[in-house]
Amino acid sequence: MAVYTEITDDELTTFVAGYDIGHVVSFKGIAEGVENSNYLLQTDRANFILTIYEKRVAEQDLPFFLGLMDHLADRAFPCPTPIHGRDGDALRRLAGKPAAIVSFVEGLWVRRPTPDHCAQLGTALGMMHVAGDGFSQQRANALTVADWRPLFDRCKAGADTVEAGLADSIAHELTELKQAWPRALPSGVIHADLFPDNVLFLDNKLSGFIDFYFACNDFLAYDIAVCLNAWCFEADGAFNITKAKALLTAYRRQRPLAEEELAALPLLARGAALRFLLTRLYDWLNQVPGALVQPKDPLEYWRKLQFHRGVTGPGAYGLD
Amino acid sequence: MAVYTEITDDELTTFVAGYDIGHVVSFKGIAEGVENSNYLLQTDRANFILTIYEKRVAEQDLPFFLGLMDHLADRAFPCPTPIHGRDGDALRRLAGKPAAIVSFVEGLWVRRPTPDHCAQLGTALGMMHVAGDGFSQQRANALTVADWRPLFDRCKAGADTVEAGLADSIAHELTELKQAWPRALPSGVIHADLFPDNVLFLDNKLSGFIDFYFACNDFLAYDIAVCLNAWCFEADGAFNITKAKALLTAYRRQRPLAEEELAALPLLARGAALRFLLTRLYDWLNQVPGALVQPKDPLEYWRKLQFHRGVTGPGAYGLD
Repeated sequence: MAVYTEITDDELTTFVAGYDIGHVVSFKGIAEGVENSNYLLQTDRANFILTIYEKRVAEQDLPFFLGLMDHLADRAFPCPTPIHGRDGDALRRLAGKPAAIVSFVEGLWVRRPTPDHCAQLGTALGMMHVAGDGFSQQRANALTVADWRPLFDRCKAGADTVEAGLADSIAHELTELKQAWPRALPSGVIHADLFPDNVLFLDNKLSGFIDFYFACNDFLAYDIAVCLNAWCFEADGAFNITKAKALLTAYRRQRPLAEEELAALPLLARGAALRFLLTRLYDWLNQVPGALVQPKDPLEYWRKLQFHRGVTGPGAYGLD
Repeated sequence: MAVYTEITDDELTTFVAGYDIGHVVSFKGIAEGVENSNYLLQTDRANFILTIYEKRVAEQDLPFFLGLMDHLADRAFPCPTPIHGRDGDALRRLAGKPAAIVSFVEGLWVRRPTPDHCAQLGTALGMMHVAGDGFSQQRANALTVADWRPLFDRCKAGADTVEAGLADSIAHELTELKQAWPRALPSGVIHADLFPDNVLFLDNKLSGFIDFYFACNDFLAYDIAVCLNAWCFEADGAFNITKAKALLTAYRRQRPLAEEELAALPLLARGAALRFLLTRLYDWLNQVPGALVQPKDPLEYWRKLQFHRGVTGPGAYGLD
């Protein structure tokens, strides 16, 4: 996150008085969440996360995100539950910006996922996709195949400073993906950003998904593709087929994967890799002095993309 | 803080097993503390702060800091209490760096201190100076008058890019301060960094001082000078004599101020302003891309220094 919004004591007191959550005993900015300002809010009753939505999140999307968390929590899916104010509203304003309080999900994120963590992720992702069914609001994926070209146009000029020839390689990949991208696959609500820091574990048991601020309607298998990239590569760049198999096998027990979803997986994984390559590239080339988060290496995702280009069938992901 | 140290789950589990503090349920980096990596560690028993000491803090100073917090906490002064491991040690290692766990001090820091907050600050500061008596370890102030010239030499070249003529003005001030700096005043353990973000209040009652990582032995009145600068100026740069009077009056009830301390206060306040001007100037001129904290305006402290240059007696601070 670039900058924290400064909250005065008076603003905080007035804001919290709009809820029935007890009396504030601590309030600290936390160094997580790239898009918003997040604070750990402790009251004499419980812990909460207070989020102030900064400009990178579109205000008109907030009812979708909060409504989705409400919908999933109602179906006992483990995720932050929006706290509604005394007037019934979950989406409120603080320091002139949209803000919300959600329940605190206990747990730690795993820096080095094991195959067992990946299996639990697969189970929970399948459960989330099933639980998302029936959620009435819609939000298009703002970072899917049609959006990559304009995003690339904004960082094309600097791409070759990261690696010689990168601009041409990306342009070529973009063309291929646009032509081959599936037109119809089973769709629904996806998380779209299930990196390890958004999945918490308590005693090595998955305790919840967090950070639903990229959630949208898209192919369900695209969520799996994001996870394959984020969870199944080792630090040295090697793909770990054991982790992929654990993730996919567990997922399929919750929601069977259709033949066309399996067939599309390598392509979706290339697309998912390109999506994170492009946003990382943009952040890399547009670093803000004093920003709170260090930019991540875009080339990590270029190497992952190469792996999926070489995949010829689901066997590469550990499936029969 | 520049960068967080990444802690793996295994490292954390092993580390916490060295204490009798219960079972970890949450662990989050917090966006406070410029010198170290700070994490909020929640167990099933209580909340704690886990600090990893980064290179900006000298390892040989850590026993002083932790010993001081132990000493003050033993005397019922409200501050973080170091948690000792099962082997009795408070200072340990995590991820190859020195680390410690301290108790969590509830409360919020006040963004807009009132005269009442300043009075409570004065009372607590006086209490801390009295409670510090008898602490056997010593640590010289590493940022006092003799240290300012070498620090200035490292940022002199860039000073005029911040404001034309600033380098000459600082050089002149340094010479004056060095000549006039008191040789003997009542001394003891000082906090040396009592900005509002290091003083917590719960329901508008002071609940504790935190962040003792600049504490040292020096003139006690120098701590007051730091507070005058950090608490008694308004956002528009005006000095608030009501706040200064409240702070000093409350302090004197805990520890009387000698005539020579009162007489030295304007000079100490100029020195305290120069100390923060110089470190801010250094940080301003040496910004690290991706750093977690935005540099603060050095000139704010140049303007405060000018105010104290015009002070002719304690009446300017609201004292008779």
